[in-house]
Amino acid sequence: MKAIKNTSIAERFAEIRGVTMKLIEPLETEDFIIQSHEDVSPAKWHIAHTTWFFERMILKEFNSSYEEFNTAFDFLFNSYYNTIGPYQPRHQRGVLSRPTVDQIIDYRNYVDQQIYNLLAESASETKKEIEALIYMGLQHEQQHQELILMDIKYNFFVNPLFPAYGQTEKRPLSKQQETQFVEFEGGLVEIGHDGNGFAFDNESPLHKVWLEPFKLATKPVTNGEFLEFIKSGGYEKPEYWLSDGWSIVKEYNWKAPLYWLKDTEEKWRIFTLAGIQDLELDEPASHVSFYEADAFSRWKGKRLPTEAEWEYASQSVAIRGNTMDDGVYHPVANSYDLQSASLSKMFGDVWEWTSSAYSPYPGSKPLEGALGEYNAKFMCNQMVLRGGSCATPVDHIRETYRNFFPPEKRWQFSGFRLAEDQS
Amino acid sequence: MKAIKNTSIAERFAEIRGVTMKLIEPLETEDFIIQSHEDVSPAKWHIAHTTWFFERMILKEFNSSYEEFNTAFDFLFNSYYNTIGPYQPRHQRGVLSRPTVDQIIDYRNYVDQQIYNLLAESASETKKEIEALIYMGLQHEQQHQELILMDIKYNFFVNPLFPAYGQTEKRPLSKQQETQFVEFEGGLVEIGHDGNGFAFDNESPLHKVWLEPFKLATKPVTNGEFLEFIKSGGYEKPEYWLSDGWSIVKEYNWKAPLYWLKDTEEKWRIFTLAGIQDLELDEPASHVSFYEADAFSRWKGKRLPTEAEWEYASQSVAIRGNTMDDGVYHPVANSYDLQSASLSKMFGDVWEWTSSAYSPYPGSKPLEGALGEYNAKFMCNQMVLRGGSCATPVDHIRETYRNFFPPEKRWQFSGFRLAEDQS
Amino acid sequence: MKAIKNTSIAERFAEIRGVTMKLIEPLETEDFIIQSHEDVSPAKWHIAHTTWFFERMILKEFNSSYEEFNTAFDFLFNSYYNTIGPYQPRHQRGVLSRPTVDQIIDYRNYVDQQIYNLLAESASETKKEIEALIYMGLQHEQQHQELILMDIKYNFFVNPLFPAYGQTEKRPLSKQQETQFVEFEGGLVEIGHDGNGFAFDNESPLHKVWLEPFKLATKPVTNGEFLEFIKSGGYEKPEYWLSDGWSIVKEYNWKAPLYWLKDTEEKWRIFTLAGIQDLELDEPASHVSFYEADAFSRWKGKRLPTEAEWEYASQSVAIRGNTMDDGVYHPVANSYDLQSASLSKMFGDVWEWTSSAYSPYPGSKPLEGALGEYNAKFMCNQMVLRGGSCATPVDHIRETYRNFFPPEKRWQFSGFRLAEDQS
Amino acid sequence: MKAIKNTSIAERFAEIRGVTMKLIEPLETEDFIIQSHEDVSPAKWHIAHTTWFFERMILKEFNSSYEEFNTAFDFLFNSYYNTIGPYQPRHQRGVLSRPTVDQIIDYRNYVDQQIYNLLAESASETKKEIEALIYMGLQHEQQHQELILMDIKYNFFVNPLFPAYGQTEKRPLSKQQETQFVEFEGGLVEIGHDGNGFAFDNESPLHKVWLEPFKLATKPVTNGEFLEFIKSGGYEKPEYWLSDGWSIVKEYNWKAPLYWLKDTEEKWRIFTLAGIQDLELDEPASHVSFYEADAFSRWKGKRLPTEAEWEYASQSVAIRGNTMDDGVYHPVANSYDLQSASLSKMFGDVWEWTSSAYSPYPGSKPLEGALGEYNAKFMCNQMVLRGGSCATPVDHIRETYRNFFPPEKRWQFSGFRLAEDQS
Ligand SMILES: [Fe+3]
Ligand SMILES: [Fe+3]
Ligand SMILES: [Fe+3]
Ligand SMILES: [Fe+3]
Repeated sequence: MKAIKNTSIAERFAEIRGVTMKLIEPLETEDFIIQSHEDVSPAKWHIAHTTWFFERMILKEFNSSYEEFNTAFDFLFNSYYNTIGPYQPRHQRGVLSRPTVDQIIDYRNYVDQQIYNLLAESASETKKEIEALIYMGLQHEQQHQELILMDIKYNFFVNPLFPAYGQTEKRPLSKQQETQFVEFEGGLVEIGHDGNGFAFDNESPLHKVWLEPFKLATKPVTNGEFLEFIKSGGYEKPEYWLSDGWSIVKEYNWKAPLYWLKDTEEKWRIFTLAGIQDLELDEPASHVSFYEADAFSRWKGKRLPTEAEWEYASQSVAIRGNTMDDGVYHPVANSYDLQSASLSKMFGDVWEWTSSAYSPYPGSKPLEGALGEYNAKFMCNQMVLRGGSCATPVDHIRETYRNFFPPEKRWQFSGFRLAEDQS
Repeated sequence: MKAIKNTSIAERFAEIRGVTMKLIEPLETEDFIIQSHEDVSPAKWHIAHTTWFFERMILKEFNSSYEEFNTAFDFLFNSYYNTIGPYQPRHQRGVLSRPTVDQIIDYRNYVDQQIYNLLAESASETKKEIEALIYMGLQHEQQHQELILMDIKYNFFVNPLFPAYGQTEKRPLSKQQETQFVEFEGGLVEIGHDGNGFAFDNESPLHKVWLEPFKLATKPVTNGEFLEFIKSGGYEKPEYWLSDGWSIVKEYNWKAPLYWLKDTEEKWRIFTLAGIQDLELDEPASHVSFYEADAFSRWKGKRLPTEAEWEYASQSVAIRGNTMDDGVYHPVANSYDLQSASLSKMFGDVWEWTSSAYSPYPGSKPLEGALGEYNAKFMCNQMVLRGGSCATPVDHIRETYRNFFPPEKRWQFSGFRLAEDQS
Repeated sequence: MKAIKNTSIAERFAEIRGVTMKLIEPLETEDFIIQSHEDVSPAKWHIAHTTWFFERMILKEFNSSYEEFNTAFDFLFNSYYNTIGPYQPRHQRGVLSRPTVDQIIDYRNYVDQQIYNLLAESASETKKEIEALIYMGLQHEQQHQELILMDIKYNFFVNPLFPAYGQTEKRPLSKQQETQFVEFEGGLVEIGHDGNGFAFDNESPLHKVWLEPFKLATKPVTNGEFLEFIKSGGYEKPEYWLSDGWSIVKEYNWKAPLYWLKDTEEKWRIFTLAGIQDLELDEPASHVSFYEADAFSRWKGKRLPTEAEWEYASQSVAIRGNTMDDGVYHPVANSYDLQSASLSKMFGDVWEWTSSAYSPYPGSKPLEGALGEYNAKFMCNQMVLRGGSCATPVDHIRETYRNFFPPEKRWQFSGFRLAEDQS
Repeated sequence: MKAIKNTSIAERFAEIRGVTMKLIEPLETEDFIIQSHEDVSPAKWHIAHTTWFFERMILKEFNSSYEEFNTAFDFLFNSYYNTIGPYQPRHQRGVLSRPTVDQIIDYRNYVDQQIYNLLAESASETKKEIEALIYMGLQHEQQHQELILMDIKYNFFVNPLFPAYGQTEKRPLSKQQETQFVEFEGGLVEIGHDGNGFAFDNESPLHKVWLEPFKLATKPVTNGEFLEFIKSGGYEKPEYWLSDGWSIVKEYNWKAPLYWLKDTEEKWRIFTLAGIQDLELDEPASHVSFYEADAFSRWKGKRLPTEAEWEYASQSVAIRGNTMDDGVYHPVANSYDLQSASLSKMFGDVWEWTSSAYSPYPGSKPLEGALGEYNAKFMCNQMVLRGGSCATPVDHIRETYRNFFPPEKRWQFSGFRLAEDQS
């Protein structure tokens, strides 16, 4: 648990809660309210829901005299915990003008203060339990930090005015090395979390997996490579696509990744949190669905890695990269030299789709109670992504971290890296 | 054109535009953004669209050097004028956080100033034409004033916090007289607008209609009477309902008018712009669909009046009543004495459903150009309502005025009055 | 009641029931089962439902010892009579393979025999009542004869094999006279049924209507004229269309009337009950929706007639024309000489859309009991058509007859005739 | 390839094609046409499509002078092979009355004869290739034999007459032994097809998998056990359900497995191919979705086996059981003695849901060309089932066979068997 070594839990709490407040600074009041798609949530909802998480999972459990800020908030800001009670339907989060943004910030301040009080007053016996829950709450907060950026990006994209969330410093444009493939012997390896430090319940236990020899690309597929797929008619040829994917391509008339736009002169442009920009060919392709990643791989004669291959390969790579902390909020080309044939960009930039359906590890045990709903109940119809993105806090990234999305979703910062069998 | 007798058009413009600004005063910034149903529009959209109407129909037509406030607004704030160009889809009006409310108010101020300038500078030859269009723009503004109130009411209703738009003064609760029926001989009568003063194109021309002898109720059906219908199983018995209405009742599981709520003790309550209130039995029933009005009438052994009957009957009644100007925004029981068997509440309180489909009058001529789309293209699948409501400005009401809604809609302040054949 | 003058009711019953059996002769067993659209019904359902009508409305009412053929048939073959009980949902009529076609024919024979028995045995007091109901059942049977043809046509059209129901004799192709307009003075006229002979409840009573002077076209709009509308971009220009119509045009991507097809050389062809044929320009345009009829009229600077205008104009025209009895089942060009400027083709060929919404006549009274559901409950969101078609039995046509369909429907044989104001 | 040892390919072809014809013998012509749900296909379509498979994959590839029976059939009876060309949409298979059933049988006879001719005439060099394809075509035929039974069952179930496909001999009702759990050590095991004999491309290659020690139930969950789940409120408690499953339960208002019915005295009954029967508690529960299997397992504190666990456990079990060949078409209670704690009913009775998403084996290679679409393109959003059912031909069952369905489907004969970790 590197990141929190020399920090008290209260300081850590203040720091991460503060990051959220920093993220919403560029927003106008109006920006907090809208929900332009049922997948996205209003910024107001995120800052209320993360607060509710601390109130509901900690304050109401450990402080018997706790008084709720507003008794209606349990309904309004519960996301999906059925064991806690009914909640505002997800697709209806954007129809609520009240409570106002200021009232939500009052709510945050109230709950924060109550958390500090609880930490100050708890006997050491419960303090440990409380601290573990606060740590989980902070991990949850960080997930919603990434969601805030994803959701603002989508909300701004549907607006014909294409507002910008912020300005981006110039992105590195150095010519990239060609993609190469790193060989891995495989065999009986171990993946999963060993129990040292925080991990979600879905990452455990550490367990054995047999891997055949495989190769993994040195870097994610780039915009330039993806453009070749488009130009070769990739979106018009069903032979590259899974059946469900091909249905989606036709239903939504997909022609390119999300956020790619053609300007009036047929030149590709790309919508970012800094507004519309030129499409940079050396940047990792992002905002692709699993279906697009899979189709590209088949077109290329390769495949996606399994999550076990990915994790095994990542075990020797340091966790660094272009993350939320860099404030770019956009995947970038490499700015540093690559040693030929070593893995780069495994962490940060883009979440990488794997070929693995999201399912329980052998011997895994979901948490007890409401928190058992956090991860386990989504283990169907979703695919695993690995590695974190340019919108993930660096100290939220773990090599065992299992992100997951339905295969057709692409408003997350999702790209992919090719793999292939040896032989 | 009584209402504008002693006022300059500029003063009239300032006055009515000012009413709109007054109406939005109680709103928080957040309240301007949301669209909780595809039928309703954000308050922000209303104040921008009414401004766009003046910009597009007048400034861009009569001021050749006019510079648009923002060229994207033609797309964003055109409602449905296909001859003008494409527009933001209606059901997507609530996904736009930008422009901000402040920017829209700047837009209003900019356009208002330009209108004043145009009025000051126009040669007398075009001035008359401009004034006629401004007058139409003000009628349009008044329609959207009523829509603002309707839409805020709906937006607040879907919020579990049930916010109030304002406080209502105590509603009059005097015991009402029993409903009686006034007899009309009918024969060859005339309805429609005679061309003196402003009217929409759909109200003209004055024309002959043959009416059989009929009777019309002295007042609209009340909550108490409607409650009897409910208690007698009216919503469960298909024999009272039109086929399409019965489908809607089952699809949406209607049990009562919109905004009726049962509290935890099974007592009926009602949502108003002043929040949740007791159901007052003597108030006119409101927020019923045409289907409910029609079913009630059949249950009661009566029928709805045709629009010709309604208009003919109204010709001897003064235009006064509980209108937007009273600031109650809710239909009320009579506070004044009724002479027995005379028509009351024909104007104000609730729009009254008629049995007439909205269709063109014989010899009618829609306006030329884009303004021809204002009324005529909706002459299918809609029913006519008459008389104005508690959310209609009193000087917007005419006895020839034809309001229209699809038969299943009920977020407008709509009630009804019974009629029957003589003999 | 011309047609039944010299025939006993039993003979009349035998004759009309026999026509139905004749109509289904060309069908394969497989053709009886399918329902290719929720608007159409399987032929099997029609022959069972018309039988059920006699069983339910007559046998079960007047024969206390009547034994049902199959007690499940009340559920299976009730169409929409809610007061009778629940029924198989309309859109699910095509999922039932059983009862088989042979079983349905046994059911027909059983019920027919029971009707004959009832007629033979009834005391004169009830006999009159029974005969009136049988006469209504026969009118009902004739309506379903037209529906059988409409529905088979649609069912065959969706099949890539484009099967033919029968062979058509050569259609007359004589060059038509130009359309002219016949003038009518209007004034206070009378329309509606006077009570002599059979009529549906929706045709009564005879009542006064004031008509302004108008003109009516000598014949329906032809394919050739409609083709001009298409070529001029009629389906791409919203200014001609009602708002709801324009939505439908875009939603379904309409480019021409139903059953028009372009062959591989871009030549228009037309699907008929005799298979795919050349488009004959002089034939009346058919299978257009109200929206298309209305848009064409606006494009042409004319309008549709009201149903009162149509009926008044028809009062001097003999009921003859190209009807079901001719066995062509397709509207044809005139084969007989037209006196210039007299109305032709008012009856037969195509039902003619009017501009009138289907609503109750002043003083009208729906039938009591279940039969009150026959017509009255559809008086919303439907438009009136007049005159009968090439699929209507000639003795089913009356000048007072009110057919009705929702404005977007076009699988019926529906065309239209232009009107305009005098002045 | 046990089953075809002493048979020529032509004999084998005749035999399996003949089984299909035998299966449709009890059907009326009407039964061949309907499609009561988009998942099911008309029997007519199945017998045409399986014929088309031989025509398209073999005759048109190997007989250059082959003349198609009907050129439209390539469109009508292609199921989903995009690389071959466009096809009748799946949900529209039931709107086609033509070709008639007799014409389809002519088509079958024509193609069969052509296959015999081809076999007789082929040079030995191509004959081997042809025989392999015929063998695949026969496997395909057998899959559709099971589908025919599944689809007829569904089509008959939606009919209020509840027709029976056939009579069932009395089902064995012997009291079953309690379920016990068999222990497996696991470790590095091998699963998948070794290339000896026929297998689909998705079953290969033989490959290593690491298994933790596990236990597997001696028999599938029974109706009686499933009833306990229902009675304990299993369908009302979200905590047992995957998130997507819970949505489905609420959307479709599931209260029990498909085909379970409550009679008027609240007693559970069950619809079978022999009509409505009593619910036998000792029979394997069938027609459950993956979600229901998974929820039951969680309620019971167990889990579903992975497909690797299932296959590994099955390797010592003989392939015998209650299969299509028995003609019962319904899962039965054990009629033979069970040695305590040995696996029973692994094959036949019900397909058993596993916890494994359907995805490619390491090193797997889909077939080239159109046949590559057979299995591989469905490797997303589907779960693996193992073991075959009472509607599967016994010689179609393999221990490596991977059946797959989306997790919400339940019209297949699907049950499940519990597993758990050792520890
Ligand atoms: Fe959350
Ligand atoms: Fe407007
Ligand atoms: Fe009928
Ligand atoms: Fe197949």
